[in-house]
Amino acid sequence: MTAPDETERLARVALSRASEPGDLTTASLVAQLGPVGAVQRQLEPKTDSLLHVRLAAVDPEGELERAARVGIRFVAPGDDEWPVQLDDLEAGEVEHLGMGLLPVGLWVRGPMPLTRLRESVAVVGSRSATTYGCDVARSIAGGVVRAGLPVVSGAAVGIDDAAHRGALSAGGPTVAVLACGPDRAYPVQNADVLRHLWSTSAVVSEAPPGSAPTRPRFLARNRLIAGLTRGTVLVEAAVRSGALNTATWAELLSRQVMGVPGPVGSAASQGVHERIRLGTATLVSHAAEVLELVGATGEHLVEVPRAPERPRDRLSAVEQQVLEHVPVVSPARIDSIADAANAHVRITDPTLRRLRDLGFVELLPAGWRLAREPGNAV
Amino acid sequence: MTAPDETERLARVALSRASEPGDLTTASLVAQLGPVGAVQRQLEPKTDSLLHVRLAAVDPEGELERAARVGIRFVAPGDDEWPVQLDDLEAGEVEHLGMGLLPVGLWVRGPMPLTRLRESVAVVGSRSATTYGCDVARSIAGGVVRAGLPVVSGAAVGIDDAAHRGALSAGGPTVAVLACGPDRAYPVQNADVLRHLWSTSAVVSEAPPGSAPTRPRFLARNRLIAGLTRGTVLVEAAVRSGALNTATWAELLSRQVMGVPGPVGSAASQGVHERIRLGTATLVSHAAEVLELVGATGEHLVEVPRAPERPRDRLSAVEQQVLEHVPVVSPARIDSIADAANAHVRITDPTLRRLRDLGFVELLPAGWRLAREPGNAV
Repeated sequence: MTAPDETERLARVALSRASEPGDLTTASLVAQLGPVGAVQRQLEPKTDSLLHVRLAAVDPEGELERAARVGIRFVAPGDDEWPVQLDDLEAGEVEHLGMGLLPVGLWVRGPMPLTRLRESVAVVGSRSATTYGCDVARSIAGGVVRAGLPVVSGAAVGIDDAAHRGALSAGGPTVAVLACGPDRAYPVQNADVLRHLWSTSAVVSEAPPGSAPTRPRFLARNRLIAGLTRGTVLVEAAVRSGALNTATWAELLSRQVMGVPGPVGSAASQGVHERIRLGTATLVSHAAEVLELVGATGEHLVEVPRAPERPRDRLSAVEQQVLEHVPVVSPARIDSIADAANAHVRITDPTLRRLRDLGFVELLPAGWRLAREPGNAV
Repeated sequence: MTAPDETERLARVALSRASEPGDLTTASLVAQLGPVGAVQRQLEPKTDSLLHVRLAAVDPEGELERAARVGIRFVAPGDDEWPVQLDDLEAGEVEHLGMGLLPVGLWVRGPMPLTRLRESVAVVGSRSATTYGCDVARSIAGGVVRAGLPVVSGAAVGIDDAAHRGALSAGGPTVAVLACGPDRAYPVQNADVLRHLWSTSAVVSEAPPGSAPTRPRFLARNRLIAGLTRGTVLVEAAVRSGALNTATWAELLSRQVMGVPGPVGSAASQGVHERIRLGTATLVSHAAEVLELVGATGEHLVEVPRAPERPRDRLSAVEQQVLEHVPVVSPARIDSIADAANAHVRITDPTLRRLRDLGFVELLPAGWRLAREPGNAV
């Protein structure tokens, strides 16, 4: 897509102000006619839609000016700053969710260019989060930004807030995508975080400055969080959490969907467990596993956790063979152990003594048995 | 397989006493020559193996008599009581674990016939279990036996013990498969449970009465737990837990492998999370999900958890449409809401009043906004 000329940009601004985020009619008109054509079609005298009425009233130059005065810019498809991964939203397959296609543009407040989100990770979850969930969200977000990837979330209370704060504590970039205008500090509990993002990174919205958060705008916003990022980590989500909607979008857009497990009795984890159980989300426990899933092949490979090598692993084959036949509880005589280990007594005897010196076995009046030390647990 | 005649049965008893559980040589000889042929071959004067020496010393009639005196019977392949699902162990594919094939027979103490294990479920896990893990093991075992399926476990401390106790509390059958002889109360902490199983259900072992628990016997035992059951539920397992070995056997035998998640910081859940993450275990949260996975098609179907219907769901289309455009925080005037909802003011006005009567919205001096009640959470 080539960079929009000034007329196109103003047409997009007008459409952004006049239509709802995610509005399918607007998106379809733009896809068919381009932004200028879409505005012209809607301004024809014979149309009397709401979009028509609103478009007639918009002053796009004034919109841009007022936005610029509070440090907000408008980023449109084709702009250098446009996050091209969002173009996946144009794939016809996702239309069936009834909320469609590309946003006509994004309103951005904050110095970070949106191109940096190309390698970002979404960390989202319930508003009614547990302390456990918030701890894990903070930890994962911290690990993700330490690896150089920005964390995207929705600035809601609970998990979103913990994700932003975890990223900020780790000194990394984090971006909020809002359902309201990017100038609004909503929810008020997180006003300090949003103010921080305004001055250090970016707050993004499809809704123009001043817009209030409404339910359809939250749903439209979720598709942007999923679309902007390489993958979405669901930290806690009850069975009717909006975060599950973000996960569904991520799935439709072929992004990684990851879920953090929790105690099975916790309602806040129920929605996440369900997605893992059905195989639409991959279980992740910490940032390294997230990075492995969203990274390019070979980057950020997680080592499968292994127990530390045990002293037993360093024994010779004969020592291991004899040791394996020393009883756990009731001592056995040397000939019975030799017998069980299929070894001669003249080999078994010095082997047992060596094993005793190494602390593996003990000699009691009734015979040999395993020493009581954790390395011998079977 | 036809029922073994007396000569065959005695040959199996002799082999059971003379060889180690899971011994590949014995199993191969029996597979090739039958139990009687295997004994004859080993008793030939030219062989001088350990098996030869031991076989020559065994008195199988005496073994059976002494076992019967403490209420222990010997169950062999072909017997009516033989758990035929174990025959899956003969499939060549599982041989590569180096512990092979069918046991020559099982020693059983307790009144329950082993045929009842056809529909059983294994619940296993770490010895070093957490309170959380033990609670979940008890709860899942209880739910499984309430559905009429026996719970199989290994009578170890920790998760195994919790599984047996959970099954017993729910009044259901539970069977222990031991690494030592079925007459031994090992570990001593669980002696009361084992005594209970001896008198009410069954304790099973491949090792003859009196045998001590050794490491290779634990590993051989794990294949029986996996093979006897329709599926194995891993409740907690650190990265080097023996329970993971049982899960691997279940996988090799095409049984269901299920894992219970826990907090990501818990070392006791790390091995389980790893299996779920790699897709070799299915996440389960409670007994109903276990029953769905091990049940025949259509049995025990789990309802996907759904949130309760919200009052919002009962509104008319117009009411929902208007409601969706009422701001969450800053009140909006009626014409702005009508505008956003794409509805006439003369419809929006009575709709908003009805929504207020229903408690969804409130009218402030500056206009309408959502009422502060949980049903409106977006």
